[in-house]
Amino acid sequence: MGGAVATTAAAGIEMIRSGSNTLAGLPLADRQVSGMAAYRDVYFDGWDLSGDDLGTAAMRHGVIGEKELTNGASPLNDMKPWPAVGSTDFCANIDGANKIAAPGHRAAVERIQADLQRFKADRQLDRVVVLNLASTERKADLAADALQSVDAFERGLDRDDPAISPAMLYAYAAIDAGAPYGNFAPSVAADVKPLADLARDRNVPVAGKDGKTGQTLMKTVIAPALRDRALHVDGWFSTNILGNSDGLALDDPKSLASKVGTKKSVLDSILGYHVEDHIIMIHYYRPRGDDKEAWDNIDLTGFLGQKMQLKLNFLCKDSVLAAPLAIEIARCLGLAQARGEGGVQEQMGIFFKSPQTTGGGEPVHDFFEQQIILDRWLGDK
Amino acid sequence: MGGAVATTAAAGIEMIRSGSNTLAGLPLADRQVSGMAAYRDVYFDGWDLSGDDLGTAAMRHGVIGEKELTNGASPLNDMKPWPAVGSTDFCANIDGANKIAAPGHRAAVERIQADLQRFKADRQLDRVVVLNLASTERKADLAADALQSVDAFERGLDRDDPAISPAMLYAYAAIDAGAPYGNFAPSVAADVKPLADLARDRNVPVAGKDGKTGQTLMKTVIAPALRDRALHVDGWFSTNILGNSDGLALDDPKSLASKVGTKKSVLDSILGYHVEDHIIMIHYYRPRGDDKEAWDNIDLTGFLGQKMQLKLNFLCKDSVLAAPLAIEIARCLGLAQARGEGGVQEQMGIFFKSPQTTGGGEPVHDFFEQQIILDRWLGDK
Amino acid sequence: MGGAVATTAAAGIEMIRSGSNTLAGLPLADRQVSGMAAYRDVYFDGWDLSGDDLGTAAMRHGVIGEKELTNGASPLNDMKPWPAVGSTDFCANIDGANKIAAPGHRAAVERIQADLQRFKADRQLDRVVVLNLASTERKADLAADALQSVDAFERGLDRDDPAISPAMLYAYAAIDAGAPYGNFAPSVAADVKPLADLARDRNVPVAGKDGKTGQTLMKTVIAPALRDRALHVDGWFSTNILGNSDGLALDDPKSLASKVGTKKSVLDSILGYHVEDHIIMIHYYRPRGDDKEAWDNIDLTGFLGQKMQLKLNFLCKDSVLAAPLAIEIARCLGLAQARGEGGVQEQMGIFFKSPQTTGGGEPVHDFFEQQIILDRWLGDK
Amino acid sequence: MGGAVATTAAAGIEMIRSGSNTLAGLPLADRQVSGMAAYRDVYFDGWDLSGDDLGTAAMRHGVIGEKELTNGASPLNDMKPWPAVGSTDFCANIDGANKIAAPGHRAAVERIQADLQRFKADRQLDRVVVLNLASTERKADLAADALQSVDAFERGLDRDDPAISPAMLYAYAAIDAGAPYGNFAPSVAADVKPLADLARDRNVPVAGKDGKTGQTLMKTVIAPALRDRALHVDGWFSTNILGNSDGLALDDPKSLASKVGTKKSVLDSILGYHVEDHIIMIHYYRPRGDDKEAWDNIDLTGFLGQKMQLKLNFLCKDSVLAAPLAIEIARCLGLAQARGEGGVQEQMGIFFKSPQTTGGGEPVHDFFEQQIILDRWLGDK
Repeated sequence: MGGAVATTAAAGIEMIRSGSNTLAGLPLADRQVSGMAAYRDVYFDGWDLSGDDLGTAAMRHGVIGEKELTNGASPLNDMKPWPAVGSTDFCANIDGANKIAAPGHRAAVERIQADLQRFKADRQLDRVVVLNLASTERKADLAADALQSVDAFERGLDRDDPAISPAMLYAYAAIDAGAPYGNFAPSVAADVKPLADLARDRNVPVAGKDGKTGQTLMKTVIAPALRDRALHVDGWFSTNILGNSDGLALDDPKSLASKVGTKKSVLDSILGYHVEDHIIMIHYYRPRGDDKEAWDNIDLTGFLGQKMQLKLNFLCKDSVLAAPLAIEIARCLGLAQARGEGGVQEQMGIFFKSPQTTGGGEPVHDFFEQQIILDRWLGDK
Repeated sequence: MGGAVATTAAAGIEMIRSGSNTLAGLPLADRQVSGMAAYRDVYFDGWDLSGDDLGTAAMRHGVIGEKELTNGASPLNDMKPWPAVGSTDFCANIDGANKIAAPGHRAAVERIQADLQRFKADRQLDRVVVLNLASTERKADLAADALQSVDAFERGLDRDDPAISPAMLYAYAAIDAGAPYGNFAPSVAADVKPLADLARDRNVPVAGKDGKTGQTLMKTVIAPALRDRALHVDGWFSTNILGNSDGLALDDPKSLASKVGTKKSVLDSILGYHVEDHIIMIHYYRPRGDDKEAWDNIDLTGFLGQKMQLKLNFLCKDSVLAAPLAIEIARCLGLAQARGEGGVQEQMGIFFKSPQTTGGGEPVHDFFEQQIILDRWLGDK
Repeated sequence: MGGAVATTAAAGIEMIRSGSNTLAGLPLADRQVSGMAAYRDVYFDGWDLSGDDLGTAAMRHGVIGEKELTNGASPLNDMKPWPAVGSTDFCANIDGANKIAAPGHRAAVERIQADLQRFKADRQLDRVVVLNLASTERKADLAADALQSVDAFERGLDRDDPAISPAMLYAYAAIDAGAPYGNFAPSVAADVKPLADLARDRNVPVAGKDGKTGQTLMKTVIAPALRDRALHVDGWFSTNILGNSDGLALDDPKSLASKVGTKKSVLDSILGYHVEDHIIMIHYYRPRGDDKEAWDNIDLTGFLGQKMQLKLNFLCKDSVLAAPLAIEIARCLGLAQARGEGGVQEQMGIFFKSPQTTGGGEPVHDFFEQQIILDRWLGDK
Repeated sequence: MGGAVATTAAAGIEMIRSGSNTLAGLPLADRQVSGMAAYRDVYFDGWDLSGDDLGTAAMRHGVIGEKELTNGASPLNDMKPWPAVGSTDFCANIDGANKIAAPGHRAAVERIQADLQRFKADRQLDRVVVLNLASTERKADLAADALQSVDAFERGLDRDDPAISPAMLYAYAAIDAGAPYGNFAPSVAADVKPLADLARDRNVPVAGKDGKTGQTLMKTVIAPALRDRALHVDGWFSTNILGNSDGLALDDPKSLASKVGTKKSVLDSILGYHVEDHIIMIHYYRPRGDDKEAWDNIDLTGFLGQKMQLKLNFLCKDSVLAAPLAIEIARCLGLAQARGEGGVQEQMGIFFKSPQTTGGGEPVHDFFEQQIILDRWLGDK
């Protein structure tokens, strides 16, 4: 919750509530959808391995400044993250002191569920949605026994099975408590078989994974046009530099592999052929801070076998792109629950790099197809 | 016809016919549409102020080389452009010796129509389509008397009215002869009131204008995504360098103004608001030759008023992007005529920077909406 | 004086004096040269057509913020520019209310000299240096009678000759008063024959013109290496966007022509041959504010006639690059006077796009040669 | 010798000899230095693991085409590389069939020396220079016994010590035979202690290592200017894509580490402080072929702590930049020998990323200082 995305989302909502920020930058700001929570009625809170209050975290991330904290974002100073579940096995470069003092998986789940219940009661909320905004975990061992069925997973909880990651514990706790769950990180969570099954069985909405913010967003925007204009992609080189804790987490090769996996899948699917020279790199580079810079070089072959190049340079702010998506994911998951629609919310694919599908089928990656699908579901266009 | 786009289109078709080139790079190559001409059944020929045969022109433009001319493109050596109508009043930097020896507008129209008839007969073609692939003319004086109605236009022809440009003469000749007309240039032609009316009255298909190839293509691809993600465009700076005769033509400020006009219209329409700092520049820069380089810088404001920048650098080949579109425009116009559909072909808007609409209404510019509209018309998806 | 460069220089010196800023960013910070003023002993003040105090101006330019104004830059709030000489004939887009209420050239000169004397006395300064940090004027008419000799110039002053620009009035006033004069703008001033002669005759140090800050700096850094590696420059395309009042001034084609002139001269001189396709553009683009963005594309031919491209994208802050140079120019001019060295200070060429030379000969533009020349003069290396 | 650089250098010299190419692109083309071989008097030949003749290799690398092979470069068709020493231990991704059929280090050295003698006699040359243009080897184990002294090295040759790499065998064979040796690769060779000592003792000129061609060249050009303008480098991110066999060799992490090592050293040395965020990446990316593309992003802090960014994008041709340097290195080494100057030729540092110095001291990296040093030695300026 003290991460840059969570802090930015919380700050944004508080500033909207106080009137010091508009709805600009929120993708669904102008939609009138019956049953979807108003922005002013959304409340953020959550867990973090760092115990800093969100005002302090906001200053550290540099997304909002003193002025914003004074004008409208002051509630952040009173928001102290709840103790979190961490694991340096799953996320090597990220650790902190604000940990759940609990002896194992079951205790962690109980603590998470207690936090949710207390938050709902204190704030008198209609419903609680859980979002994973934590750092990227390494790839999970999907062949592990504990990840084959709901029963196996629950037995795994009983014996503190090391195949169960922190992200899975949160997802299980949410789904088991009937709270919709959205996965903004690339980590395996509600998409693992037992949890996807559980969400379906309990009719709890889940959606994921890995927020589609910068470079991958542009990839799913440009690739469809290259396909439609019959410009063949010979290679696509993507590199990124960023200096926030997300970058630090990805400086661990295991977390990076997990992240690159979700980033890589989109291209071949849109183009309809395999691009062998598709390279994606992410580097931890401190001068950039929370800003993120992405370079893309696309090699194209056009008519008569002629070669061309398209290059992109995106100087963006990671959490400023991500926070509005996190807010909309929460609102859409709440809407799904209000409508009684549980299980995987495929129509929310536009928010994710690696959209979760029912049964694990190939998702739609084309940004404009995704927009049409979402619009149809929202029902307002 | 000896321009880079025309030469490339003709070369491509000849190489396809001879088997030395595939259909790669042609946007509609994999569509099976009943009534649309096969690529091998398309024949190119036409007018040019330069009398060079197309083999010579191809070598000069540098798009195809000696090897291609030997392997499959040799028919180009026998294609000598027909004498053309030129006007240094309308296009200051472009002139040539291969001119129609005709004393006025009426004689020019007759000569154009005679050329069409002879071409159709010689090649035993089902139909002839006229495409404007000539250099950009300066803006026309739309308030001129001759441009107010079909009758006024025809009286203007009689008295060699200077408001009638070469591009209009070709468009009139085509429509009057029942030949579909496509305008790949930004020049005013079939979109002027008398000619649009004539096309409607005679049920002749027309489409235009200004082929959407490089920078504007990307603009209509990226702007919809920025809108959908609620990233506000504060400014969009676009600059281009190119060294071919198109670049030379645009080095004349009057032709440039005409070109920039069609390039500028797309942005506000897609975004739904006016971008005041939208700058478009085109520079004649010889080291680039027929290659074209476009830079775009987009200034964005996201959530919480945070600023970001997206930059594009497109190293493209103008005629390689344009030629396949010219071929598809010809095939689509032929299809429309085969289906008995005359007047403005709005569903062909995806091929143009400034799509002509019936009655001059606001066109759709969003690339992906355009693709859906075209697909629906083609009927194969 | 309320311009972005002047404000930044004044703010920087005040913050150094107060201890809230270090000497980082000042090119000569680590040189120990006997006779050169210490940074803390430098005081800024001056004329501006805008009457805003410098604190207000600093906030408007956005270079320093409230925090800096509180910590160390507070003296800016008390600095109100003196009424200035302006001319919309010479600088079409820039005007203001804070004008000298004087009926002509002679009165203006007297007022300027009185300001200098008062400033020197009030601050108890050893010497006063005049810097031209004003907006770019249009090209002067160098053939005008008044610009042929000192006598002619002085007669021109008497009759308010329109060939004499505001920049020339300031330069004359300074030299005539024995104050060293540095020209940071591209405008013609001390480089016009009568003023260069006067500076020589009176032994007053002068240097100019047009501060070498961003794109031109990089040009004089990279071109020497291309020459030394025998990479032939086929073309160099340079474009700029900036949104401050400097950009607005250059939005006037006459001022732009003046600016581009000084920017263009450097390339051929360094390379030793003429680059015909050398294009320089500057655009007023408000989203960039005081930040400036420069793109350069360089087309190269290497061994065996092979083509290559080098592209630069400089996201810089105009006044942050310029202010330290302005400060160093003032210190060097003061040093020259302390050493008794009057006339054109050729060894200061490194600070300027278009270095003024004695007798108007071809200046050295190669950055590294310039550095050696300056170092030799400073005598500390 | 069949590598892209060697082939390009050989092709260039043959085309100069035949008159089909000029001296353009050769850095020292306009210098008249007594004792330096004329370009027309230089002959190339050598070893390669691929047995293809150089005509075939040239076509494969795509640097010169059929036309050049017919016009002037036809001698390449008759140049078949001599069998080479290879080691997949030292260069994992590069192997070939054209290997020396020799049972160990001593036999390899004898074979190399016999090749040199035969080449000199056949061509009736004044002297033979050996250049290492082979693929990058992994880092050598500099602490190995065999690399501590000439004696130890020679005992290592006797027992086929695995610490002695192919590059060292060539360097030893050259120096031992009195032939000047230049190291264009990053591999350890004449810079290892025993070989540097041997070169000094025998008075044989040696120079290296790692040709300074593209990205590092620009780094040593720009960094001095940033230092002189007091723009602090907060970080420098450099990434490269290339698709030739050099890129394939560097796809092996061990060879990459060796390469990045020589590329990294230049920055801190020029700036005078340590840049912690200095990242260098090289990726094997086949669509680029022999062309190489380098991106650099430099984060700067200027006056008043203000941040700026400078970005470079160099679309270059690796072997076109390298071949002229290889030719000049050979000519300079020959000149040194003609002048009787043996040992490390420090004045040749401008040609190398990691200039070898006598005694291993810190080399000069600043491109402009290097040029002055070379000019002084050449004595013609």
